[in-house]
Amino acid sequence: MSAGAEEAGEPPKDDAPKIAVNRGISRLDFIMRIVAVIGTLGSAIAMGKTNESLPFFRQFIHFRAEYKDLPTFTFFVVANVIVTAYLILSLLLSIFHIVKSDARVTRTVLIIFDMAMLAFLTSGASAATAIVYLAHKGNTRANWFAICQQFNSFCERVSGSLVGSFIAILVLMLLIVLSAVALSRN
Amino acid sequence: MSAGAEEAGEPPKDDAPKIAVNRGISRLDFIMRIVAVIGTLGSAIAMGKTNESLPFFRQFIHFRAEYKDLPTFTFFVVANVIVTAYLILSLLLSIFHIVKSDARVTRTVLIIFDMAMLAFLTSGASAATAIVYLAHKGNTRANWFAICQQFNSFCERVSGSLVGSFIAILVLMLLIVLSAVALSRN
Repeated sequence: MSAGAEEAGEPPKDDAPKIAVNRGISRLDFIMRIVAVIGTLGSAIAMGKTNESLPFFRQFIHFRAEYKDLPTFTFFVVANVIVTAYLILSLLLSIFHIVKSDARVTRTVLIIFDMAMLAFLTSGASAATAIVYLAHKGNTRANWFAICQQFNSFCERVSGSLVGSFIAILVLMLLIVLSAVALSRN
Repeated sequence: MSAGAEEAGEPPKDDAPKIAVNRGISRLDFIMRIVAVIGTLGSAIAMGKTNESLPFFRQFIHFRAEYKDLPTFTFFVVANVIVTAYLILSLLLSIFHIVKSDARVTRTVLIIFDMAMLAFLTSGASAATAIVYLAHKGNTRANWFAICQQFNSFCERVSGSLVGSFIAILVLMLLIVLSAVALSRN
């Protein structure tokens, strides 16, 4: 009877707790992806909307500050939008893993894509952080002024928009750890 | 006879080609780690030595350019040094995987650490790239001047030192892909 069940492709009794744990990991994976989507989407919107949010500045200074003025911020927005799109698509695979918790190939594919997106998002967020840091502190050696002294609310908004990205980076790292653990248990 | 071999922990005959492929993957892993070490070490040295390499500038300008003038470049050097140290240590685990090619736990550990180092190195390299880009192009909106017009060889050297890091980032990504594939085959 037991041998028959194994031949029919059903998991043997010993695997039941293992599969339950892997299903739990997959559910956690799903929830964490939604958290990451909120982070990257929030970052993209917060940074992307900065150009419209400073009407009161326009009248007495010679340029209005917007994210497009700095190519690094444009890259940041693009990276966040692409990672958001990827994360939403990856929810499908995440649901598939809840149903079929011993999947190997799709988990491997997910690790590889998560890793690529992690590198991409880290790249965008770090580059933006470097520029935000410069905007706050300036650099006397290079004669780069701390523009945040003039553009207070632009700077605050830009700095705030980094937070979502860094939360998403942490979540992506945890997702890769979870997938690797689930894969090694299969 | 065959069942006895399995009980004794020896791999059954069917696993022989699988183990051979995994051993091949582990050897490739070892070689690629050495390539990555060369990349990060080269980057760290190239960037770290910039402060001594421009004596001819000192006499007629008001400051000598060195990497410590920009905190982002210091972070870049630190990230490269730490990743170099990690990669050298990880060679031990890589050798262990060549010997014991069906290891699961250590492969999972290696994926997790490789991922953390990938994020760390990407962060350092991207932040430095954002500043190097600014040094080359400047930004008229923010009144940040293209300092590379004055510091030609400083800029060339700094830009060149990024290359090693980006090679190491690509290699780390391939290492994670290889480890994930090896893990899913076990």
